[in-house]
Amino acid sequence: MKCTIIGATGYTGIELIRLLEAHPSFEIVCLMSDSMAGESMHDVFPFMNKKTYSSLSSFSVEHLMETETDMVFLATPSGISKHYLEQLQNWSGYVIDLSGDLRLPSEAYAAWYDKEPIDLQLQQRATYGLPEWNRQAVASSKWIANPGCYATAVLLGLTPFLKEKKIDPSQIIIQASSGLTGAGKTLTAQTHHVHSSENVRLYKVNQHQHIPEIEQALFEWTGSSDPITFSTQLLPINRGIMAIMTVQPLIDLSEAEWRSWLIDQYATEPFVRIQQADPEIKSVVGSNHCDLTVYKDDRTGRVTIVSVIDNMQKGAAGQAVQNANILAGFDEMSGLTQQPIYI
Amino acid sequence: MKCTIIGATGYTGIELIRLLEAHPSFEIVCLMSDSMAGESMHDVFPFMNKKTYSSLSSFSVEHLMETETDMVFLATPSGISKHYLEQLQNWSGYVIDLSGDLRLPSEAYAAWYDKEPIDLQLQQRATYGLPEWNRQAVASSKWIANPGCYATAVLLGLTPFLKEKKIDPSQIIIQASSGLTGAGKTLTAQTHHVHSSENVRLYKVNQHQHIPEIEQALFEWTGSSDPITFSTQLLPINRGIMAIMTVQPLIDLSEAEWRSWLIDQYATEPFVRIQQADPEIKSVVGSNHCDLTVYKDDRTGRVTIVSVIDNMQKGAAGQAVQNANILAGFDEMSGLTQQPIYI
Amino acid sequence: MKCTIIGATGYTGIELIRLLEAHPSFEIVCLMSDSMAGESMHDVFPFMNKKTYSSLSSFSVEHLMETETDMVFLATPSGISKHYLEQLQNWSGYVIDLSGDLRLPSEAYAAWYDKEPIDLQLQQRATYGLPEWNRQAVASSKWIANPGCYATAVLLGLTPFLKEKKIDPSQIIIQASSGLTGAGKTLTAQTHHVHSSENVRLYKVNQHQHIPEIEQALFEWTGSSDPITFSTQLLPINRGIMAIMTVQPLIDLSEAEWRSWLIDQYATEPFVRIQQADPEIKSVVGSNHCDLTVYKDDRTGRVTIVSVIDNMQKGAAGQAVQNANILAGFDEMSGLTQQPIYI
Amino acid sequence: MKCTIIGATGYTGIELIRLLEAHPSFEIVCLMSDSMAGESMHDVFPFMNKKTYSSLSSFSVEHLMETETDMVFLATPSGISKHYLEQLQNWSGYVIDLSGDLRLPSEAYAAWYDKEPIDLQLQQRATYGLPEWNRQAVASSKWIANPGCYATAVLLGLTPFLKEKKIDPSQIIIQASSGLTGAGKTLTAQTHHVHSSENVRLYKVNQHQHIPEIEQALFEWTGSSDPITFSTQLLPINRGIMAIMTVQPLIDLSEAEWRSWLIDQYATEPFVRIQQADPEIKSVVGSNHCDLTVYKDDRTGRVTIVSVIDNMQKGAAGQAVQNANILAGFDEMSGLTQQPIYI
Repeated sequence: MKCTIIGATGYTGIELIRLLEAHPSFEIVCLMSDSMAGESMHDVFPFMNKKTYSSLSSFSVEHLMETETDMVFLATPSGISKHYLEQLQNWSGYVIDLSGDLRLPSEAYAAWYDKEPIDLQLQQRATYGLPEWNRQAVASSKWIANPGCYATAVLLGLTPFLKEKKIDPSQIIIQASSGLTGAGKTLTAQTHHVHSSENVRLYKVNQHQHIPEIEQALFEWTGSSDPITFSTQLLPINRGIMAIMTVQPLIDLSEAEWRSWLIDQYATEPFVRIQQADPEIKSVVGSNHCDLTVYKDDRTGRVTIVSVIDNMQKGAAGQAVQNANILAGFDEMSGLTQQPIYI
Repeated sequence: MKCTIIGATGYTGIELIRLLEAHPSFEIVCLMSDSMAGESMHDVFPFMNKKTYSSLSSFSVEHLMETETDMVFLATPSGISKHYLEQLQNWSGYVIDLSGDLRLPSEAYAAWYDKEPIDLQLQQRATYGLPEWNRQAVASSKWIANPGCYATAVLLGLTPFLKEKKIDPSQIIIQASSGLTGAGKTLTAQTHHVHSSENVRLYKVNQHQHIPEIEQALFEWTGSSDPITFSTQLLPINRGIMAIMTVQPLIDLSEAEWRSWLIDQYATEPFVRIQQADPEIKSVVGSNHCDLTVYKDDRTGRVTIVSVIDNMQKGAAGQAVQNANILAGFDEMSGLTQQPIYI
Repeated sequence: MKCTIIGATGYTGIELIRLLEAHPSFEIVCLMSDSMAGESMHDVFPFMNKKTYSSLSSFSVEHLMETETDMVFLATPSGISKHYLEQLQNWSGYVIDLSGDLRLPSEAYAAWYDKEPIDLQLQQRATYGLPEWNRQAVASSKWIANPGCYATAVLLGLTPFLKEKKIDPSQIIIQASSGLTGAGKTLTAQTHHVHSSENVRLYKVNQHQHIPEIEQALFEWTGSSDPITFSTQLLPINRGIMAIMTVQPLIDLSEAEWRSWLIDQYATEPFVRIQQADPEIKSVVGSNHCDLTVYKDDRTGRVTIVSVIDNMQKGAAGQAVQNANILAGFDEMSGLTQQPIYI
Repeated sequence: MKCTIIGATGYTGIELIRLLEAHPSFEIVCLMSDSMAGESMHDVFPFMNKKTYSSLSSFSVEHLMETETDMVFLATPSGISKHYLEQLQNWSGYVIDLSGDLRLPSEAYAAWYDKEPIDLQLQQRATYGLPEWNRQAVASSKWIANPGCYATAVLLGLTPFLKEKKIDPSQIIIQASSGLTGAGKTLTAQTHHVHSSENVRLYKVNQHQHIPEIEQALFEWTGSSDPITFSTQLLPINRGIMAIMTVQPLIDLSEAEWRSWLIDQYATEPFVRIQQADPEIKSVVGSNHCDLTVYKDDRTGRVTIVSVIDNMQKGAAGQAVQNANILAGFDEMSGLTQQPIYI
């Protein structure tokens, strides 16, 4: 299966290169970057190994055809993917877009991203690619809207509870934190080391663009239509997301019973692990896992669901490869079996 | 005013030395440490400046009298302070205990600390020393229970809202995070650099010993008697606490109105700042400030209150000096006017 | 090729598991740990994936035979490997020892490690496994002394210059720095996060146990018999070593000429890269590369050689796998082609 | 003594504000910043306390006179200070320039800074302000060239050895490392958190602009005229410099004798401490100390001198205040007695 990465010099582009090079069944045939076309990846990033394909090309559909590309990964920012998607609309291969441009219909996109949306018909071609809850639809698609990092962490935590009507959909409070790769490679005062180290910053309180994405998926999969409370923190680490979801259960189970119940919900999922130990971000860094933990507070009756992922893997490039495996008919874990890098 | 620090070699002991040496009206006359008696602070911690008093003594009431100590700071761990307090019960000077041993009555202490409580009569001698809400009582006391770090951050955020009946006391969800000085100097796998760096860990979910301390103070000052939901994260930074409190308002104000209202509540407090910018931990590190921010979500109606302190200062040694200033009749800001160390 | 890891719960043990699981031709059949025998890796380290072999066994030669182990990796500390090696002396499989126990003859070992050396005859069975300079000897060996991390970085930098008589062997000044995984998982005050973060410590100045290892290899490969000056710093990062070697050249080449010359020296080596950009540690983290850079100072005439490796890979587990590939007759890069993890 | 800070919004400007506000005898009367004139420091940096003087003014000599400024601190970058100094040439107050603009005569400045130098006559007005070696000259000056951070660390280490002819001036190899505040607040890829964390980068090998500053001072104070070898590393920490100087002694002393000798050389200096323990950067962070350690290697005969400072204090703002104390006739330690912030 031949693939091309568009936007190869961004963080998710680089992570895709790492994963796809180590994948037994995908072959990278082309790296595209309009801003750095003509340069070699090794010159731009001296840490990268030299490969035959590692000279950067500018985007063109012709070049996809020349290279016999079967699948493209759009590792371009929201607002930029749109332009490539428009040019890809008559191309017959598989498209996995890691940006937000295919995740929301026009109106919601315009409201939360403050950018011009892609044409609604193009957006509706895409399947929202969270395989654990949408695998069948992914399998029969050509275009995939790869989910947002926070959305992935939150949806894997909340969906089983809401789908099975175990919690009150109007009482969901989410506090999520992300490492700095989530903020991308654009230089900003907030991500200047002297400012961000020994620091934690709260940002976009109840205004993060992953909110409508979460609510839309919850509505589709569980019928829940209540707005969520969602605040986000920027952590002085590189990778990882922890989402802490406080909810009101509708049935009375003990903590042990909740854990057993959740193990059953995800019994067949290779990337979701229910942990008994206190959750920590590094448990999943460098892997495509989502680790979930559940707590029950007997004093308040509330339940706390915790979800941990690597924002660069299950929150971006890893999930893209998981979707790619499904599209291509490969084993879903293919190329994604690496142990986490805890130390 | 002559003072002695008991437990001078712990983190809060060292911070007290820094603050009291720079204080215009306190003089340290003795550093006590039973575990390192006889050694000099500079030998144990080569970074410390040599001072006349910096040879460590073992604890004795006689030595307090020989040195004409007016005030002692107990910078000893919970469970250890108890033993010194028992020996200090007939000593006539001021006592500020930075541990949890004087904060809770026997039953609650035993339940949450899992240690033997101090005698109830001794505990009841102590005033809970959060000056912003208990200044008069502090001023007329001899013994002070210096508040816990998380409790300080949370109480400064919640108290005005609950006291003025602006929020529903049964709907309080708190997610708080702390730097690693909060975990003290005991070596553990969780605080081993290789494990804790590039990591965040959730711990003591709804089981932190500051929960009953918060609830007790809220009950006393506001009448609220509902249990809180309280989870805590360990951050890969040295200092600082951020507490994010999601609440249900009982009146309908805009975000700007909530901010104005909160500015009024703390108008006369020198250490509380209402911030308009997104909160970040480093804004207060190295200072005795508590920075508060309020957000209103029009979609859910919920309000998010954020409180940020330096756990070593307003959460421990700084607040102890603030209490000491009140006890001694000094200006409350005396020795506590330093700018934060952002860079 | 079936392999067993002894000391599987230490840092290098865990890294070996990561690498060998992703290796196309090795199969882990057993993890041994006398201190944690009977436990499962996933219980000890919840981040690890469950595998059939991941219950920890105590060491025994019988068990190696039952599992049909072809090769053992000793990921045990210096001083501990000795005991296993003694028991392995009549076992017929391949042995790769990652500790210092096989690197030095008895007298030097005793002097620099301050531990009891292994019997000299056993030590002399082992080949020092730095493939770039000792590949033929490795290929015909059964026992390998896997080099130390600092030694690997320094030897890859200095050997070509000394072997070709390009620099004065009596004028070698080395300043090397290492991340904290190099200090292992033993809890110490120096590796307690609060102490080690925002800090750099110099240690073992001219006393590091890798000094005799470096000097011995240089003598064997280049004839140089002069002592080196060698100081070491502990960095507040997890992985990586940078060794800065200041030397006096014996011939007059420009910086560009030195770089070309060095490229030629390592032209056929898959893991050594000569970099033109300023060296940085993260260029090699997560990979088995050694990146080299050369500078020439026209004012002083001195040359500065810089060597960067990941101490967990080329400095330990990666090099062990490289040696294992040679022993087993596999492609030397097999299982070691991963891109560095820069972001 | 009334003072004004020009360039108040840079890192050294902010550190000067911290130090001068806590100083018993200096009063800040004005903060100047041409780029942010009209704004308040608290609006630009919400962490800062509001003060009467904290509205930023644009620079003018008239305003210095209106505010009755006695002393100005130029906390502006190299190349920018020049313009203010030219305008200050007829102003009668004290000037302390923290940039490189007054440190070197025209030719050397142009060669190493690659900027246009200030007029030589203005440059020669200034005294190089390293009080430990130039105190008398400072005391009788009006203009001070405040030393560079690396230069301060190196000169305090080397000067006594060279002045007393204890080491060979032609054999000096220096490896120095600095925290990221040394790179300033300009946003760059190298100081973007995701790139700089878990990383160390070597830069400006033998090309750092502090080299001629060091050599010039050594020549003036010791007569040594040999070029030094000097490489520099950027560390993933905020503050601190460690300089490791390997030298060839001309006399044969033991390590203990070298330490005693060095203690004698600095016996009367309040900010220089000779440490027996292994040096670490955090020992001096937040203080104006320079910690020195000496090692003797009996195998090579070489001596290693290690110097540690906080680049923001003894390397910049602290030393500026020390110079200001001398100019004003205050106790040299005035405002600089704070304990280091180790935890």
